Amino acid sequence: MIESEQIHNPPIITLTTDFGERDGYVGAMRGVILNICPHTILTDLSHDIPPQDIRAAAFVLYQAFGYYPPHTIHCVVVDPGVGSKRRAVAISTDRGIFVGPDNGVFGLVLSASDINVIEAVTLTNPAYQLPKVDATFHGRDIFAPAAAHLAHGVALPQFGPSAINLIRLDFDIHRQNGICQVIYIDRFGNLILNITDDDLGDSPLVIFTVGNRVITSLSRTFADVDEGDLLAYVGSSRGHVEIAIRNGNAAQALGIEVGDTVKITESSLGA
Amino acid sequence: MIESEQIHNPPIITLTTDFGERDGYVGAMRGVILNICPHTILTDLSHDIPPQDIRAAAFVLYQAFGYYPPHTIHCVVVDPGVGSKRRAVAISTDRGIFVGPDNGVFGLVLSASDINVIEAVTLTNPAYQLPKVDATFHGRDIFAPAAAHLAHGVALPQFGPSAINLIRLDFDIHRQNGICQVIYIDRFGNLILNITDDDLGDSPLVIFTVGNRVITSLSRTFADVDEGDLLAYVGSSRGHVEIAIRNGNAAQALGIEVGDTVKITESSLGA
Amino acid sequence: MIESEQIHNPPIITLTTDFGERDGYVGAMRGVILNICPHTILTDLSHDIPPQDIRAAAFVLYQAFGYYPPHTIHCVVVDPGVGSKRRAVAISTDRGIFVGPDNGVFGLVLSASDINVIEAVTLTNPAYQLPKVDATFHGRDIFAPAAAHLAHGVALPQFGPSAINLIRLDFDIHRQNGICQVIYIDRFGNLILNITDDDLGDSPLVIFTVGNRVITSLSRTFADVDEGDLLAYVGSSRGHVEIAIRNGNAAQALGIEVGDTVKITESSLGA
Repeated sequence: MIESEQIHNPPIITLTTDFGERDGYVGAMRGVILNICPHTILTDLSHDIPPQDIRAAAFVLYQAFGYYPPHTIHCVVVDPGVGSKRRAVAISTDRGIFVGPDNGVFGLVLSASDINVIEAVTLTNPAYQLPKVDATFHGRDIFAPAAAHLAHGVALPQFGPSAINLIRLDFDIHRQNGICQVIYIDRFGNLILNITDDDLGDSPLVIFTVGNRVITSLSRTFADVDEGDLLAYVGSSRGHVEIAIRNGNAAQALGIEVGDTVKITESSLGA
Repeated sequence: MIESEQIHNPPIITLTTDFGERDGYVGAMRGVILNICPHTILTDLSHDIPPQDIRAAAFVLYQAFGYYPPHTIHCVVVDPGVGSKRRAVAISTDRGIFVGPDNGVFGLVLSASDINVIEAVTLTNPAYQLPKVDATFHGRDIFAPAAAHLAHGVALPQFGPSAINLIRLDFDIHRQNGICQVIYIDRFGNLILNITDDDLGDSPLVIFTVGNRVITSLSRTFADVDEGDLLAYVGSSRGHVEIAIRNGNAAQALGIEVGDTVKITESSLGA
Repeated sequence: MIESEQIHNPPIITLTTDFGERDGYVGAMRGVILNICPHTILTDLSHDIPPQDIRAAAFVLYQAFGYYPPHTIHCVVVDPGVGSKRRAVAISTDRGIFVGPDNGVFGLVLSASDINVIEAVTLTNPAYQLPKVDATFHGRDIFAPAAAHLAHGVALPQFGPSAINLIRLDFDIHRQNGICQVIYIDRFGNLILNITDDDLGDSPLVIFTVGNRVITSLSRTFADVDEGDLLAYVGSSRGHVEIAIRNGNAAQALGIEVGDTVKITESSLGA
């Protein structure tokens, strides 16, 4: 019964790291997983998270995980505190299982309104780690084996004691008086803001001030403006508003970095 | 019967985008596909197509698709007109099924002499799109679901009405009087030209003039010349002629970009 | 019997190249493999090996292959001598099967103390190559088909005659009198040295001199020092000692390249 179910629903593990693809570190993790659970479907969210950038990893996971089946195991290893006292955790939810360091990489997912934590544990049981754990590569020696054993059907409590007070992150903390922030910049140079369509209200008369440039309306898509023109629109990352240049790179053209502010006026938000 | 056939011939979907691997956009597409058709073999042609570079996507697809089984579904999303009136299409051929925007990304494949279009449709049926379609990410919300439903066995006419007059691209348009063009530059800096071995005829006495440099013969492979030397040879992309520097980067060394011209003399081509 | 075994142990092929992911060259190799052996699990060690850098490929393979099951086929294509007289080989060992050019890419694996070669052949049989072999892309036309046919169960001797005197590489050649070398620099800028924990002996009083900086002890992990500080530690690549900057890039900060030397004193090594 379990076997036939597995044939129809093979386990899925997604990997998200800041390792890049160059050095074979992710390749080693994949080997560990295939060794333990050969029938896993292995897929990648990103391996080009900027080194040690926990918030970027949290955002990439946040915008992508919801498109996977709820039995998917999301293994995230952006782990500047590897080998220190930060906890290694596995978190079971109604929208996916999350494996990685408790350092904030799951912080946005855990704060999402449409996800419920079922159970979380600390990964302390050496039976589900590699025999030799190197202090600088828990991705390979602790997290990949944990994900693979979960994929293979090991129950969460087997991995270690309950974990509470998991680190959560918040988009809203710096948003006030119509000032919002750039929380992520993607490959195209599009600026993703910490406000969503829900925050904007119904008025189309919203004005965005970014650097010394002003955008006086909300567009629907890139092709609504001319090539090279600046636009704001409700983007594809869970309704977050974005600022872009059609067929251009807004971040470069405007000199904007993550954390920079954008002013929004003439909407319910500015009230 | 169908099931046992599927076990022996699992559906294959290749992905080609300009999304990069950094932001998790491709990761979200993979989730959509695995949600709809868990047994798909997912693989990648490229995600590092230069942003909005339709011709580069067309060339990468053109040189790679022929190595896949004919039941493979090739999903290509380089889509600067996303959300505008450009059509979303699926094209069934005797060499593969192609899913993406009708903006030229399939233009070289469609112009190939060894491929026959069987049927093409516009992807308008919302039953095979995600429930919420964002105007800026049809890769995730329209193309990935279409590819996955095709992999799952949904028949092409179910997706929408017939599509005719698909956009085709041509290598030859600027080639005349022995002047040809660089149509693609690869990671190694090798220059791929819009002529093939068929165009060159039998004479080995062909002279290539590129920038202020002259190559006086056609080599067979890199090792035929000394390290650092320039060579021309019939490359591995469907017989297209290439210019390279052995263990070097010809594009950088010669300052050549896509679209630059190369002069060819003393062959049947120059006649 | 064989079939049921294959269902439980699907063949695995890892790919390692210097092709990058941009041009679709790896995508074509994947198509070749899936055409020949559709049930292969395809995975990647690295495609961002610096162009023509045989030693980097050898190191990436060396640190990763051991995490894969021993029936895994590792296909490595960093091949500056493609089309020349360098041999194309397949090497069966007790820790994996290796397919690629005999140019040193397998040199570190073959020199490892924990691996035993069972049999090696030269890939000369055209029955297991693509019908048309291009002189500049044996990865697609010779190595990928060989790996796939091996995955499909073709016996090694079918591919060609025995190959002896395979090229081996050595870490130790330039290490003497307490001077060791940087043999690899990873994405984080961490410097990997040609000495291991076994070489260091038991003394914790080891001093590393790198550029004009001195490190006076061996740390366990990054978090043992302050952010921005330099540290040395036994890394995760088979016990090789590494030098890093916590949350920084040591190679950039110190101006170090592969081949540069590091002096080690006050340990058994310096004796």
